[in-house]
Amino acid sequence: MLPELKDCILDHIAIAVTSLDDRMRVWEDLGLKFEPGRELVADQGVTTAFAPIDAHGHIELLEPTGPETPIGKFIANKGEGIHHICFRVPDVAAKQIEMEARGYKFIYPVARPGAGGCMVNFIHPKSTGGVLIEISTGRHHS
Amino acid sequence: MLPELKDCILDHIAIAVTSLDDRMRVWEDLGLKFEPGRELVADQGVTTAFAPIDAHGHIELLEPTGPETPIGKFIANKGEGIHHICFRVPDVAAKQIEMEARGYKFIYPVARPGAGGCMVNFIHPKSTGGVLIEISTGRHHS
Repeated sequence: MLPELKDCILDHIAIAVTSLDDRMRVWEDLGLKFEPGRELVADQGVTTAFAPIDAHGHIELLEPTGPETPIGKFIANKGEGIHHICFRVPDVAAKQIEMEARGYKFIYPVARPGAGGCMVNFIHPKSTGGVLIEISTGRHHS
Repeated sequence: MLPELKDCILDHIAIAVTSLDDRMRVWEDLGLKFEPGRELVADQGVTTAFAPIDAHGHIELLEPTGPETPIGKFIANKGEGIHHICFRVPDVAAKQIEMEARGYKFIYPVARPGAGGCMVNFIHPKSTGGVLIEISTGRHHS
């Protein structure tokens, strides 16, 4: 059953990796195909590569641009692995207000730019049962 | 772009929770809707609840049946959170043989029954860059 597009749907599963070149092979061996090109998201200190896994959802690999970035520190502390999952919502600011009213804590006071020209924010894992959940308006596919 | 059904596609993202009753609310607040009913998978010591997040993919919440189960031990060691991601493949045994030939290590020597009457196996996170990846023939939806 395909959820309505107006509802919350999967945008991507983000995985922290030390090297895109090394780890893309794992997912390609599994059967996935990466989109051409990579994107540097300077604001978050990562280079990203995307592979579709469903109608809307993707695997997003995140390679840190340096050890002092959020993903660099994540890998230093916990090792490579799943960093967050992202859901596409029609209006990130409205969803944040709705969730904050129910007691959920967000990482940023207000939404900020993510990969592909979208606006994003993150719900703190202490609010969700240990899962860092990003909400996003979704990438602008070229 | 929807991957071909013959390819590897997302089946579910599995999240270890202490209580389905408590944690289903998080995902419902986010905008997801759970399928009616829960399934006890005695072989894996979990009770499961599924919510669709894309054309094929679901969130699967896993509540352990006791502290000595794999998910019970996972929560005791690491806390609640994402446990694995599962991809649907046409033939689990054939994919295992193909991946083992490339050097990937699997948890079980041969595939075994999972939720919904499917056959499953898991690629060890040491082979994948820290992600426990399940491959499955997919649940039989009623």
